[in-house]
Amino acid sequence: MKKKKIAIMGLGTVGGGAYDILTRNREYIMKTQGVDIEVKYILDRDVTPLEKRGIPTELFCSDVDKLAADKEIEVVIETMGGVQPAKTFIEKMLASGKSVVTANKELLAKSWHELEPIARKNKCGLFFEASCVGGVPIIRALGESFQGDRVESVYGIINGTTNYILSKMSKDGCDYATALKEAQRLGYAEANPSSDVDGYDAAYKLSILASLAFHTCVPYGCIYREGITKVSARDIENASRLGYEIKLLAIGKRKGDGLEVRVHPAFVEKDHALASVSGAFNAVYLTGDHVGNLMFYGAGAGAAPTGSAIVSDVIKALKGDIKYCDFDNSGKLDGKVKLVSDFTSGYYIDVAVEDKPGVLSRISTVFGDNDVSIKAATQAPGENGRTAIVFLTYAAGEKAIMRSLDEIGKLSSVIQISSVIRVL
Amino acid sequence: MKKKKIAIMGLGTVGGGAYDILTRNREYIMKTQGVDIEVKYILDRDVTPLEKRGIPTELFCSDVDKLAADKEIEVVIETMGGVQPAKTFIEKMLASGKSVVTANKELLAKSWHELEPIARKNKCGLFFEASCVGGVPIIRALGESFQGDRVESVYGIINGTTNYILSKMSKDGCDYATALKEAQRLGYAEANPSSDVDGYDAAYKLSILASLAFHTCVPYGCIYREGITKVSARDIENASRLGYEIKLLAIGKRKGDGLEVRVHPAFVEKDHALASVSGAFNAVYLTGDHVGNLMFYGAGAGAAPTGSAIVSDVIKALKGDIKYCDFDNSGKLDGKVKLVSDFTSGYYIDVAVEDKPGVLSRISTVFGDNDVSIKAATQAPGENGRTAIVFLTYAAGEKAIMRSLDEIGKLSSVIQISSVIRVL
Repeated sequence: MKKKKIAIMGLGTVGGGAYDILTRNREYIMKTQGVDIEVKYILDRDVTPLEKRGIPTELFCSDVDKLAADKEIEVVIETMGGVQPAKTFIEKMLASGKSVVTANKELLAKSWHELEPIARKNKCGLFFEASCVGGVPIIRALGESFQGDRVESVYGIINGTTNYILSKMSKDGCDYATALKEAQRLGYAEANPSSDVDGYDAAYKLSILASLAFHTCVPYGCIYREGITKVSARDIENASRLGYEIKLLAIGKRKGDGLEVRVHPAFVEKDHALASVSGAFNAVYLTGDHVGNLMFYGAGAGAAPTGSAIVSDVIKALKGDIKYCDFDNSGKLDGKVKLVSDFTSGYYIDVAVEDKPGVLSRISTVFGDNDVSIKAATQAPGENGRTAIVFLTYAAGEKAIMRSLDEIGKLSSVIQISSVIRVL
Repeated sequence: MKKKKIAIMGLGTVGGGAYDILTRNREYIMKTQGVDIEVKYILDRDVTPLEKRGIPTELFCSDVDKLAADKEIEVVIETMGGVQPAKTFIEKMLASGKSVVTANKELLAKSWHELEPIARKNKCGLFFEASCVGGVPIIRALGESFQGDRVESVYGIINGTTNYILSKMSKDGCDYATALKEAQRLGYAEANPSSDVDGYDAAYKLSILASLAFHTCVPYGCIYREGITKVSARDIENASRLGYEIKLLAIGKRKGDGLEVRVHPAFVEKDHALASVSGAFNAVYLTGDHVGNLMFYGAGAGAAPTGSAIVSDVIKALKGDIKYCDFDNSGKLDGKVKLVSDFTSGYYIDVAVEDKPGVLSRISTVFGDNDVSIKAATQAPGENGRTAIVFLTYAAGEKAIMRSLDEIGKLSSVIQISSVIRVL
């Protein structure tokens, strides 16, 4: 059996997870995959992370050029995170003919188009199953399954932090701030949670998933992005009463000859398969023109699931698979692709109003005038001369909704538009 | 672009579905996969199926040897079903160096070990994504994803007919016979439904899935098999009251150094991801030692989803992928693998008894004496001197349960043991 040598750059949670699997399952991988994988170097700033994990310190290496120069190393795992120095380090590895396996969605979303040509030129692979949805093999599925299908849409719950927070709010009836604090205490959210709660992380992943699903480059900057920070306990309660869960959805779909790509909170009907994806779990719900609806579900993050995806890619790389994406990966949206921003969607709208006769009628008239059809409207009993009306609309164009809201906001009895959330 | 020629053997529902996709999406496949696929022959008994579908009759071919001799044909789709003549035809194609794509789970479960060596010898591929779970890429996932993981268990709802019947019984409260009739009317069940309702189809598929998941040959004859014909409306109602759905599960799991492989109805807790897989949908729920729990969900059958899996395999074959299974595929269970038949499982047990004092106590004593712990017991109010007691047990060995039931059946106040169903 061939002994294959690899290296790990960055021994954090995910890198450590990959190392553990390679160590624990070494024999099993030899037996089932016919390859004996040995970690020769672990690159990090200092030796502390190795010591903490009880990893032999002779694996420690701080010199990226030494690593690049070692011809024995065939594959390098990058689990440093962030754009720099990860990008420079990956470029060095690819330039020296080593395949790279990365979990770095931010780097990939921003620089895939720069990295892939280097991999291509040097005939080595760039693998990133671990960049999206932990151990769920969604990158493989989009790249190597249902190739005869035209994928019509991809809906994903692809950020574990926000799904944990929204599930917590739904389960406990608590508000956003309380759920966030609990997520931070449990290590599900960072001290600065912006990348997750503002939807950046989901947008990075959607950029990768949508590019593969639609065979065209979808830069993450093209993606409409709205986070969950404005979702209130009241919204969650209203959703539940109406038969919905609120989820942060990443959506990619064809519309005519265009594409919609967006990340935002959305009402999901309770009997939709995505509604039951709760806590830190993730799922991708995909529709092909022939395969119909498929869902891929699993842990979205964590050392072991993400480590599993990395090890899987390492084995793929060592077996010599080096396929590249099939579209013009220039980092720019293909000129022929029309990006649709006038989304069509149902809406949940919560309006605080003065408790006076005729308010509901005046608001409804505005919706009607703008061709927005109301599916359900409920007005709560008033208190202190104020009340709230909750509307669910049928699918309507984004512009028609915005125009309506603008006019409704100006009505004399309307105090404020408290919430606007799209419906899947 | 290279023009690739293929043939289809058997133009039924699935073969027709594959033909439709290849025709409708020909341009899209050219654009995204870089291959132009042309169907050169359709082999069938007569030309009628082609005429019915409006397919040019010059594609018709009734001579399998002519097809085998045509060097232009690189890949052959087999969608005839059944063991013969499909097996002989596939052998001819493989022997003449053509890769074969099949949806034939029965043939595969029975003859995989005979077909693969022929493929290997002639350096061509044998593909069968379409044999299990329609368009859900579970064969790819088991073969080419989470390769660093040791799969611990596979739970599948992998027969659409039985899942439709059980969902219908659960939704409408109807009995098995009524639900079966409806399934037959809608074309979900055959006139002779035995292959589905007695669990053969699920056992064929489990044989394939378990072999791949555990990297060892699991012949379908090793699989414990029990169908759904004895599941009553009362069982479904009891399940629902206790918080469960009844599903026909295909289960493969490691137990110590052994394997359990079994197909039978099972109580599934309503908040388990598998419980919400209803109607004709299928799902495979898989646990790896590092990747954790994953679920793959989608349409389990039908012309378009199964056709999609076939086209996907055709493209894979045309791209030159010909990997074989990684275990000793001798058709026999590896001598080192211990097959566990004393399953450990919770049980639902429904006992009809005379409505007399002390019955519950006497039955409970028997369970206790056999080390079976009761999780819940409910006795319905009696009528005409009879009543029923429903037990849910904690996990117990199959032998202990059978011993208990044998003794309980002999108790004087016990009329009959009406139902015994395992709990997931």
